[in-house]
Amino acid sequence: MDLETTTWTDAKAAETHLALLPVGSTEQHGPHAPLGTDTLDAEAVADAATKRYRDPVMVAPAVPVGVAEEHRHFAGTLWTSEDTFRAYVRDVVGSLASHGWDRVVVVNGHGGNISALKEVTARIVRRDDAYAVPFTWFDEVGDHSSDMGHAGPLETSLLRHTNPETVHEDRLEEAAAGGSDRWGDWQGRVNLAVDSEEFTDNGVVGDPRESSADLGAELLDRSADALCALLDAIRERDPGPRATE
Amino acid sequence: MDLETTTWTDAKAAETHLALLPVGSTEQHGPHAPLGTDTLDAEAVADAATKRYRDPVMVAPAVPVGVAEEHRHFAGTLWTSEDTFRAYVRDVVGSLASHGWDRVVVVNGHGGNISALKEVTARIVRRDDAYAVPFTWFDEVGDHSSDMGHAGPLETSLLRHTNPETVHEDRLEEAAAGGSDRWGDWQGRVNLAVDSEEFTDNGVVGDPRESSADLGAELLDRSADALCALLDAIRERDPGPRATE
Amino acid sequence: MDLETTTWTDAKAAETHLALLPVGSTEQHGPHAPLGTDTLDAEAVADAATKRYRDPVMVAPAVPVGVAEEHRHFAGTLWTSEDTFRAYVRDVVGSLASHGWDRVVVVNGHGGNISALKEVTARIVRRDDAYAVPFTWFDEVGDHSSDMGHAGPLETSLLRHTNPETVHEDRLEEAAAGGSDRWGDWQGRVNLAVDSEEFTDNGVVGDPRESSADLGAELLDRSADALCALLDAIRERDPGPRATE
Amino acid sequence: MDLETTTWTDAKAAETHLALLPVGSTEQHGPHAPLGTDTLDAEAVADAATKRYRDPVMVAPAVPVGVAEEHRHFAGTLWTSEDTFRAYVRDVVGSLASHGWDRVVVVNGHGGNISALKEVTARIVRRDDAYAVPFTWFDEVGDHSSDMGHAGPLETSLLRHTNPETVHEDRLEEAAAGGSDRWGDWQGRVNLAVDSEEFTDNGVVGDPRESSADLGAELLDRSADALCALLDAIRERDPGPRATE
Amino acid sequence: MDLETTTWTDAKAAETHLALLPVGSTEQHGPHAPLGTDTLDAEAVADAATKRYRDPVMVAPAVPVGVAEEHRHFAGTLWTSEDTFRAYVRDVVGSLASHGWDRVVVVNGHGGNISALKEVTARIVRRDDAYAVPFTWFDEVGDHSSDMGHAGPLETSLLRHTNPETVHEDRLEEAAAGGSDRWGDWQGRVNLAVDSEEFTDNGVVGDPRESSADLGAELLDRSADALCALLDAIRERDPGPRATE
Amino acid sequence: MDLETTTWTDAKAAETHLALLPVGSTEQHGPHAPLGTDTLDAEAVADAATKRYRDPVMVAPAVPVGVAEEHRHFAGTLWTSEDTFRAYVRDVVGSLASHGWDRVVVVNGHGGNISALKEVTARIVRRDDAYAVPFTWFDEVGDHSSDMGHAGPLETSLLRHTNPETVHEDRLEEAAAGGSDRWGDWQGRVNLAVDSEEFTDNGVVGDPRESSADLGAELLDRSADALCALLDAIRERDPGPRATE
Repeated sequence: MDLETTTWTDAKAAETHLALLPVGSTEQHGPHAPLGTDTLDAEAVADAATKRYRDPVMVAPAVPVGVAEEHRHFAGTLWTSEDTFRAYVRDVVGSLASHGWDRVVVVNGHGGNISALKEVTARIVRRDDAYAVPFTWFDEVGDHSSDMGHAGPLETSLLRHTNPETVHEDRLEEAAAGGSDRWGDWQGRVNLAVDSEEFTDNGVVGDPRESSADLGAELLDRSADALCALLDAIRERDPGPRATE
Repeated sequence: MDLETTTWTDAKAAETHLALLPVGSTEQHGPHAPLGTDTLDAEAVADAATKRYRDPVMVAPAVPVGVAEEHRHFAGTLWTSEDTFRAYVRDVVGSLASHGWDRVVVVNGHGGNISALKEVTARIVRRDDAYAVPFTWFDEVGDHSSDMGHAGPLETSLLRHTNPETVHEDRLEEAAAGGSDRWGDWQGRVNLAVDSEEFTDNGVVGDPRESSADLGAELLDRSADALCALLDAIRERDPGPRATE
Repeated sequence: MDLETTTWTDAKAAETHLALLPVGSTEQHGPHAPLGTDTLDAEAVADAATKRYRDPVMVAPAVPVGVAEEHRHFAGTLWTSEDTFRAYVRDVVGSLASHGWDRVVVVNGHGGNISALKEVTARIVRRDDAYAVPFTWFDEVGDHSSDMGHAGPLETSLLRHTNPETVHEDRLEEAAAGGSDRWGDWQGRVNLAVDSEEFTDNGVVGDPRESSADLGAELLDRSADALCALLDAIRERDPGPRATE
Repeated sequence: MDLETTTWTDAKAAETHLALLPVGSTEQHGPHAPLGTDTLDAEAVADAATKRYRDPVMVAPAVPVGVAEEHRHFAGTLWTSEDTFRAYVRDVVGSLASHGWDRVVVVNGHGGNISALKEVTARIVRRDDAYAVPFTWFDEVGDHSSDMGHAGPLETSLLRHTNPETVHEDRLEEAAAGGSDRWGDWQGRVNLAVDSEEFTDNGVVGDPRESSADLGAELLDRSADALCALLDAIRERDPGPRATE
Repeated sequence: MDLETTTWTDAKAAETHLALLPVGSTEQHGPHAPLGTDTLDAEAVADAATKRYRDPVMVAPAVPVGVAEEHRHFAGTLWTSEDTFRAYVRDVVGSLASHGWDRVVVVNGHGGNISALKEVTARIVRRDDAYAVPFTWFDEVGDHSSDMGHAGPLETSLLRHTNPETVHEDRLEEAAAGGSDRWGDWQGRVNLAVDSEEFTDNGVVGDPRESSADLGAELLDRSADALCALLDAIRERDPGPRATE
Repeated sequence: MDLETTTWTDAKAAETHLALLPVGSTEQHGPHAPLGTDTLDAEAVADAATKRYRDPVMVAPAVPVGVAEEHRHFAGTLWTSEDTFRAYVRDVVGSLASHGWDRVVVVNGHGGNISALKEVTARIVRRDDAYAVPFTWFDEVGDHSSDMGHAGPLETSLLRHTNPETVHEDRLEEAAAGGSDRWGDWQGRVNLAVDSEEFTDNGVVGDPRESSADLGAELLDRSADALCALLDAIRERDPGPRATE
């Protein structure tokens, strides 16, 4: 149930403890994919899972700007500090929980958000009246996960399936040419880079020419199924808080 | 230019210093209008103004959750603390400005956000590298502004024009019956209430039966014109910061 | 009962739940009125109301510096950040409440404090052990309220009645000559200015020549009556907190 | 020059870099002395020094509530957290400095404020555009300093000289009877107590019967002289900031 | 050069821009290994690398408590919030840099610190006067890294080589018996657990019986070499800050 | 019981409510004594007291960096802000208390930490689930305390007894020659200096030539005895929290 387009009276009538909070980012995704890729993808996965889940699931509007300062050299990239991002997510999860929707999956579309989401959901579980857990869609697509990159085959495919009008297919060659093979500037297992412009000219990592709408359909199916399985796993969790002090 | 669906290369090519940041809320709007009313309305006004403005204007994705704890008793209402909200807006405006889009109008659709936006935009003007100013659409529709209420004729009309599928016209009678005439619980000029459930049963203030799609079209026209005039007024402003210490 | 000049033993003996916290500002008030105008006026109103109220009311010492950065270009103006101001007020109200004086009116003399006081008193009501509400004296003087301005007829009149030695009556002409008609630099309903020096040469808004001690007496009477009525309205309020999480 | 009763134009005309910020407290001072003792005393010392100093000195309105939670069990005691107090003082000193009054003495009347003032003035000196230093009057009265106590001979004497109407001389016997000899509950050099009610029944430490108006006059004279000497010592200090990073 | 045992004059004489900040944790490491395992290991690796590096490297004292709330159910585990930990590390790195040692490797011994260190070092690189990067020793030991676990073969081996008196070899059987095979409670790629007691009885993950002093020597050698290579890689880095706003 | 080298199972078996948290500093101690003097001394006192106390006492690893910005001009000095330091200590004490060790003495070796420790331990006592109190060893050595200085006879003596290899005895003459007699730059009772380089050339205050290992043994004995007496005094204290709001 999409909260943005639902009335409060209809929301109140839904009998569920489950909620999703899609979290995206507004950041460069190469010359071919839109700045809102991560948000659009997170919304698509949340929507697909909600549709196929057996019980009602409340879906909050997506958080559109996240932890993306690493892409700041590319025009249009927006970001908040990690502190601001965590506070925003915690407040929104807290208000979801206040209505009884206190088992919350944060459906994430951006790798840069992962650490912050892990930190804030653990804090919520321990201290607030909710159980919350992050779910990053591209980590839940089986072996495909290893092809992730940035603005590469996975993200581009999902967009070509769900939001094809936002992808410039005529720029895929250009995107591949100016991209890099690998995320980061590595010395051993240490990434010396803090900003993506240190290792990619046009922001792309991976080869978006390998994308397709069909692959996108498969990715959506896999990630939506994984999200449904996660909802099953958390629906009986105690929303806490787990007293620590 | 809608950042969410634009690539970074196309964003970079736009020659402008102007940007809009729509700011909404997810909160009860009676039994007839959606929880996302304020966001949808702010997006509609920003979009209309951008289309009619003579130069490119960058439009960030809308901030979907704001200062709305006052509606917390009504299911589906989401909120952040004022501190979190100000931090989120400041960070997003800061990243817009980092790309040279440093004259920013925050296009607001929610009365509860006004004080926080005034505070944070003044801070941005004085201390950051941007000129920012809030614009609340329903304050810019001439004499109609006095009919604002909450989920009343103005907001409902704008939705009926721009997002008619989100309005339950068959509930307008119910909405009017359970609403109240006035926002607040007053002793002189002091509002004794901090939460809207103290003075309205179903969250409505004002009479949404007075709404119409035609009025919505007029409201959109007036507010979009006012926003264009504001863009004209700020386009040559010095983005600062104005040193204070 | 003025806490500053009362012993703790006498304070303890007072049987009341009611307290006032005057809040002023130290900021320019034109060439004719003192920097402490807002504090002096808030104290005068609190004192007058306390004297005529039927039960004891505890009066804390006035907060002398508030949200006044907008006047920073004029010598002698002092200010704190909004965050600091809110924290200071919240802490003081909290300590008043700890002694059982947990229905608190914040008696305000400065327009720039209003938003911050509204925010912090709502937070107190929802989360702390007190009911608190702001009262701005010049909003409670009937039709006169529309003549407010800054260092204009209202504030000057109240001072001429209560603290006449602080007003330079021989500078009223000069004050009027260098003042402006209106607060702000407006485009539609949006104030483009963040600092008062953007729209007034000497800091005055309105015509202080229209002031008089007689008008001051009337203003004091009206605002003190309004404050007493407010005390009646809140004396049975539940001090909370109203649990939200 | 007392800022509260001065106009901004007269303040601007003063040629000085020197300012005083009196800082008091609102807290129990036994059954005989007022809750505002520390504020009244700090104001008196600042006033006396200003009058005898050879150049103009700007005097900000006193900060009336400080670090006094230790007296929270006694009615009427008000306090802020140390963080709030430091922020308030820093902001006020910063606004004084913005007008060129950037050598600031914080004239303190309360022992509980000392640590926080030392911390915040060092921060100001290192990071802000001002030189600031705390001055606690009762540490600057020669051998008398060792008789300080709380609401004891020193504070009571200064009040009897400067604000005699606030002292209940008829309660001095009672005050002495219920007081204690020593501040704290000691194990070696460690004070095991965090609140004053752990070691004094009526809040008094020391014997206020030893107070007199004559002694108060002497204390005022000594502390005002010491403050003038301090103004001499800091008038040529570089207001900084001293870069640290 | 170990700062703890060096005089400031000798520290000043060292000609280097390089520094190490070991970061450990005080947390359960099963029945056989000490609570300080992570600190001892981080110190050992920093020490070994410093000894073999061709130029002087300043070594700060180890941060002994980190992000370890996940082990809070096991006695003796100490932790700080992530915010406190980041602030502590940032301040220490900042003071190292103030002396010219502004290329800093944070030598980490605890998996729970990794996210927080990545966040804070990126902040330092972008905003402060230092280049800083985290290095986690057990990620830099080649194929062995996959055997990490918790209190398992790697950590136990390194201790048996460097601090053998701290390991209870007679408890290795017990340790293995009560441990678990895998870190976490997984649904797909999502860890449902926030605390380690949700998936291990005695805190162990992995089989410490596979540890040996010889393996410890190899691990120390590999990680020290990797750390030296990292020092080579960063010694010419620009300490910044890289302006972002 | 030294937590760093103890297993969690052995820690759990200890039956005690008592814990020590040594707190040091990494800061200049003249040309003759190590930067870690304050940490080494605090650890030595904590260790000595633990050994002679009749019951088990848990000893946390020492906090190695504290409030020492005043020594920032001398190479190798490390510091955190006071806020960070207080947060770190509070978090560590809180985790000690979570295991039932909720009567905590913070064993301090650095004068610059005293104010911050007094503030944070009072906050812990009032608000958290622990009783905590600071103990500064050099204040507990009888008449010797008046010889404290900085890197002077007391600290040097204790090191010569407990960590003799860290003291450069051949530099004592140089240390004395470049030191100063008194801490601070005084006008009356006000210290005009914020940094130690304002009043000492090599960081020394006092005459370290007066140090000896024998005096160190006496100092250790006295301070350890005082610490044991303090443990006796607090072992039955209620760990709180003492509700204040």
